Amino acid sequence: MNRKLRMGMVGGGRGAFIGAVHRMAANLDGKIELVAGCFSSDPEKSKASGDDLFLSPDRVYRSYEEMAEKESALAPGERIDFVSIVARNDLHFRVAEKFLKSGIHVICEKPLALSLDEGKKLEAIVKESGLVFALTHNYTGYPMVKEAKAMVKEGKLGKILKIVAEYPQGYAISDYEAASEGDGKISNWRMDPSISGVSNCIGDIGSHAENLAQYISGLKLEEVSADLNTFIPGRNLDDDGSMLCRYEGGARGVLFASQISTGEENNLNIRIYGTKASIEWHQEHPNELVVKYADKPRETWRRGNSYNGEAAAKYTRLPFGHPEAFIEAFANVYLAAAEAISDAIEGNYKGADSYDFPTVADGVEGMAFIEAAVKSSSENGAWTKI
Amino acid sequence: MNRKLRMGMVGGGRGAFIGAVHRMAANLDGKIELVAGCFSSDPEKSKASGDDLFLSPDRVYRSYEEMAEKESALAPGERIDFVSIVARNDLHFRVAEKFLKSGIHVICEKPLALSLDEGKKLEAIVKESGLVFALTHNYTGYPMVKEAKAMVKEGKLGKILKIVAEYPQGYAISDYEAASEGDGKISNWRMDPSISGVSNCIGDIGSHAENLAQYISGLKLEEVSADLNTFIPGRNLDDDGSMLCRYEGGARGVLFASQISTGEENNLNIRIYGTKASIEWHQEHPNELVVKYADKPRETWRRGNSYNGEAAAKYTRLPFGHPEAFIEAFANVYLAAAEAISDAIEGNYKGADSYDFPTVADGVEGMAFIEAAVKSSSENGAWTKI
Amino acid sequence: MNRKLRMGMVGGGRGAFIGAVHRMAANLDGKIELVAGCFSSDPEKSKASGDDLFLSPDRVYRSYEEMAEKESALAPGERIDFVSIVARNDLHFRVAEKFLKSGIHVICEKPLALSLDEGKKLEAIVKESGLVFALTHNYTGYPMVKEAKAMVKEGKLGKILKIVAEYPQGYAISDYEAASEGDGKISNWRMDPSISGVSNCIGDIGSHAENLAQYISGLKLEEVSADLNTFIPGRNLDDDGSMLCRYEGGARGVLFASQISTGEENNLNIRIYGTKASIEWHQEHPNELVVKYADKPRETWRRGNSYNGEAAAKYTRLPFGHPEAFIEAFANVYLAAAEAISDAIEGNYKGADSYDFPTVADGVEGMAFIEAAVKSSSENGAWTKI
Amino acid sequence: MNRKLRMGMVGGGRGAFIGAVHRMAANLDGKIELVAGCFSSDPEKSKASGDDLFLSPDRVYRSYEEMAEKESALAPGERIDFVSIVARNDLHFRVAEKFLKSGIHVICEKPLALSLDEGKKLEAIVKESGLVFALTHNYTGYPMVKEAKAMVKEGKLGKILKIVAEYPQGYAISDYEAASEGDGKISNWRMDPSISGVSNCIGDIGSHAENLAQYISGLKLEEVSADLNTFIPGRNLDDDGSMLCRYEGGARGVLFASQISTGEENNLNIRIYGTKASIEWHQEHPNELVVKYADKPRETWRRGNSYNGEAAAKYTRLPFGHPEAFIEAFANVYLAAAEAISDAIEGNYKGADSYDFPTVADGVEGMAFIEAAVKSSSENGAWTKI
Repeated sequence: MNRKLRMGMVGGGRGAFIGAVHRMAANLDGKIELVAGCFSSDPEKSKASGDDLFLSPDRVYRSYEEMAEKESALAPGERIDFVSIVARNDLHFRVAEKFLKSGIHVICEKPLALSLDEGKKLEAIVKESGLVFALTHNYTGYPMVKEAKAMVKEGKLGKILKIVAEYPQGYAISDYEAASEGDGKISNWRMDPSISGVSNCIGDIGSHAENLAQYISGLKLEEVSADLNTFIPGRNLDDDGSMLCRYEGGARGVLFASQISTGEENNLNIRIYGTKASIEWHQEHPNELVVKYADKPRETWRRGNSYNGEAAAKYTRLPFGHPEAFIEAFANVYLAAAEAISDAIEGNYKGADSYDFPTVADGVEGMAFIEAAVKSSSENGAWTKI
Repeated sequence: MNRKLRMGMVGGGRGAFIGAVHRMAANLDGKIELVAGCFSSDPEKSKASGDDLFLSPDRVYRSYEEMAEKESALAPGERIDFVSIVARNDLHFRVAEKFLKSGIHVICEKPLALSLDEGKKLEAIVKESGLVFALTHNYTGYPMVKEAKAMVKEGKLGKILKIVAEYPQGYAISDYEAASEGDGKISNWRMDPSISGVSNCIGDIGSHAENLAQYISGLKLEEVSADLNTFIPGRNLDDDGSMLCRYEGGARGVLFASQISTGEENNLNIRIYGTKASIEWHQEHPNELVVKYADKPRETWRRGNSYNGEAAAKYTRLPFGHPEAFIEAFANVYLAAAEAISDAIEGNYKGADSYDFPTVADGVEGMAFIEAAVKSSSENGAWTKI
Repeated sequence: MNRKLRMGMVGGGRGAFIGAVHRMAANLDGKIELVAGCFSSDPEKSKASGDDLFLSPDRVYRSYEEMAEKESALAPGERIDFVSIVARNDLHFRVAEKFLKSGIHVICEKPLALSLDEGKKLEAIVKESGLVFALTHNYTGYPMVKEAKAMVKEGKLGKILKIVAEYPQGYAISDYEAASEGDGKISNWRMDPSISGVSNCIGDIGSHAENLAQYISGLKLEEVSADLNTFIPGRNLDDDGSMLCRYEGGARGVLFASQISTGEENNLNIRIYGTKASIEWHQEHPNELVVKYADKPRETWRRGNSYNGEAAAKYTRLPFGHPEAFIEAFANVYLAAAEAISDAIEGNYKGADSYDFPTVADGVEGMAFIEAAVKSSSENGAWTKI
Repeated sequence: MNRKLRMGMVGGGRGAFIGAVHRMAANLDGKIELVAGCFSSDPEKSKASGDDLFLSPDRVYRSYEEMAEKESALAPGERIDFVSIVARNDLHFRVAEKFLKSGIHVICEKPLALSLDEGKKLEAIVKESGLVFALTHNYTGYPMVKEAKAMVKEGKLGKILKIVAEYPQGYAISDYEAASEGDGKISNWRMDPSISGVSNCIGDIGSHAENLAQYISGLKLEEVSADLNTFIPGRNLDDDGSMLCRYEGGARGVLFASQISTGEENNLNIRIYGTKASIEWHQEHPNELVVKYADKPRETWRRGNSYNGEAAAKYTRLPFGHPEAFIEAFANVYLAAAEAISDAIEGNYKGADSYDFPTVADGVEGMAFIEAAVKSSSENGAWTKI
């Protein structure tokens, strides 16, 4: 490409955390420029957000439908090359469908959809469109996660026996006392099934742990026995959940996610135990990957070294010791998707599996996982196929 | 007491790891002396071990029965005050019964017995005897574990919502390749149900995690849904296991133990999440206890400081920064048991619950836990009451 | 500002590490756009770099002089608002002087100049110009460094007694064996005094440690007793150095920097000991700041929490647990400088001390530090005033 | 030996920290028994301490002279085999001389003596006596310190370029406020030159750092340039000190010790940088030794593994993951000294250099180091030969 890719955005208006993250991720490498958007269902707020972002007013839209229609009518190179969808969960399907049907590539915040059914429909639409669709399961963007995946693939771990994936957060505990006193003020769209789907905690963050485990191990999670909990009174959905896991090939494991683990911040972490070696990675210290052996010293693999493999090196911007973190990992999803979109624009798109970004298929797996976990828990932990 | 307590030992001959640990624990504080023993079922080995330990040959016995009989016939102050039982699991019940019935106090290596039934019988025998019986669930001997227990008791954590207890080891993975090739050389009494009981991994180390969780939290573990595994071909018992847990009062949790987690050493650790604060402790870094809050900086409580509570302080030997570790924690069980035994000798024994050592009741709980986990796993993870 | 700031760049062509970092830092927040540059003294390379960056060819210049002249002749809002100087050390002074005299604000990579004399001249030029001049001592851009500075200022540490500042790297050790064999292939402009000035290691990274120590502590470093070393044979400048330090008000300390500390990556770290509390920060784990007390638990202050002070909060982009790192800290220097430049454009510039970016005065202090360290070392460690 | 070694103790009465540590170290392995002592210059206190320790009253003495005379008059096997000297610094020389001249082996707490002169005299006395003399520089007793020494010896680090040895403590800061208010209550024998010699902080703990650096590196510290400080008003001796170091063969380094580093506990640590690899060890996490390389993953060597070398293995009691700590390391000095004493009793003593305990020669080096540091500091940091 001899120009920057042109990005539009749906959602992510003033005050929205994840929209700002997507924009920083898109900005970082200087290969993408934001040129259009519909930042809110409230046109005033959308306009104000567009002004904040120095957009031309005529490229700030009142609805995503208007945006899709007007943008797709512009000339190639002028119109947006892709849309970044960062609206609320319940809109992901509709917005993605609209843009795909308008011939515009999509980068979509997770979850893919509100239900497995919806997810499968979207998968079919993506397939039919032949367009690029990337889902921002951002944690797989970290270089040392890619290094871990490469280690597994190369057989360094031997046969995988056990996987422990955790995602404790504590932010939702702050409502506990108010809720206990019947204050009823707990209002959070995350707890509204019409917006969040059948699960809050497992859907929001458990699915990241699931995606990470499958990404690194290369093993399908086949079955779960789950126990989901709602600790904060008055909530309609789970705020915590644990499950036993069975992976293809016989590996077993534990997966849990929580939003009421007081004092935990965003402590996604994973341990994978193989017959020859084991690995451990923590999102809050993402530049290190610990490798453990039965009979030799434990190793700490660190990002940016010459001994890192190709996959990690490709998504590394800084030399060793100059830490990279969340935004850079997020930007790696954009970088990989941008590579695919550029290829598509130049007529060389090789299909989602040829790039290193999370796909619509990953999203469908995530939806299946969420529904299986909820079903298992409602049946008192019965082992449930995904 | 104006003299050292006199200890006898059953088991723990040359080459036995745990016997040496018990002796170092007993030696450390200079308040106990080893004066008699039956160190092996092989009289030659028993004798040689006695020589190693500078014992008088006439106090080294050919059988534990002989030892119990002859020692109990000696004058008080001359005979052993208590016996330390470090023989194989299947002998714990018989040996303990014999010495208790001979009027001799007991410190017994865990597990209490081979089955819940046997354990309950032993509990009745202890009760009837009125003697001191301490079980070396040594990990609760660590000062910072006692500090953690005190924090929970004082309400510092608020209501406990979640408990994650882990005990990964990797030592048993070394047999994997041999076993996979049908080499059949796997011989380990731990895998023999007639010696180990119904479980290897959950019995051996899972029960430590269970004991630790209940000790600190003060909550009974009521129900488990377990998935036990035997990863090394040719083994008769589990070498790994995970379970979902339900504690009294509504707390939920995860507990797992493993002996095939390659490269893990002895990584017992626990996290307890409450509505006001959470705690985290790792056996391999035992002098630190991390406390996490929703809205203030994370704290690291360190052993030996003036801010430590009474329970920790009582079992602390060194000033801050001079690390204490495994043997010192083990010695704390001996110290607490010795306090009770001295009281008993002086006619002031206040009952096991008045001291800070693991009791026969803890051992019975452990047996119930092991049997519930095995039963749950055999019923495909059905929730099983303990 | 109702538009992005327009940036030009001098230096930073293909393959240059630090130029890419400056561009990512400038890109991140979407408030700055790169519109012009002279990326290399080789016009072909400069042009190619401009193409890589999607610049209009007529804004890619053959020399920095041409760039300064042509850009300053454009209309405000069209021309660059500021130049980012990332050329070799020996050019910093000349380039900065040229742009300042052309009325263009400057963000300059450190070191400020080749000598203290040159630095002082530049300081006078900046003063006379009334323009914004920011020096990218990027490590002070980290939020937890700002938190540390605020703690000191609020008196939380009491009186400061001791400062230990370290900056070990190991990258230059790789030349050791070649050099030892007289291979002579060691060619690195960093070792050429005409490019690097009187010091390599202390100049390049020791000055970061010095800047960090003074930034956080608020204390002037008054005197040093230094021992600089050249361990790799054939080098003309130091590749390692240590010194004892005396700060205003009686604090003492140690400062060392090294590029031959095998296996160290970029391990800048600092400990400041006060009468009431002490702090510790490590650049490779930048989201944490440890606070130690005499009589209460050690605290870990973590970025992104509600308990963080204003200064840290202002330069924080992500919620707790979503780590920020090197690029974000670097971008904070750009953010602060951009705030000053925007103010200047709108006629409201309040002077360098009213913003939170490193100034020309910091640069002069750095040059004085470097020269004092070199002088002390050449006089066998004589205490030397800065 | 077919019996326990018989130990006497001078000093270490009720309330003395270091005496209790020596006794626990001697007790641990069951190879030494305490049979006699003079625990205090106050005969009542000595007697009470003897009672606490269950000693026979006729073996508790009123003075060390009486003890030396009466014990040496007893039959071999009855009398003490060696004396452990844990009295105040100013008594070390006199007590050691008395027992050596009475034909009794000595284990002596550091420092060796009050001055270099005294130290050299003692060295001559030891030499003349042909007896075993061990100095409890206990930190070299840690298995991973021995592992580090072995690595250096095997050439794993290549040529050593740099050594950073630190020993920050904070305990003495608590006097700061009282002292600042002229309260004058600071009374601590450590600050009395007639008891402590010419230095407090460097003498007490700086010498541990010096001993550790030389033990591991195998390099003599040849020259120092020091800056000692007395931060707490009213003190007569240093409570903090830093120095630049020059080792034989060209290695350079930094060494500092402090007792006013608020919140530090007993943070002795060392980093040794070689041309091929570097090592890092922290006393507060003694079971780990980090090894860093230029071009491969960082390694963590952990105590108790099969890959550990002979020297570490010989002084290891527990399997991996079962942490050992301060007392066990201290006990390793006793174990090595006991080996030498047993050999001596059996007529096979091979000379101090054939065992792995700190010797009188180490003590003389320590005294020379302390005096050189004090001299250098008093001459404004002039480089001073040791």
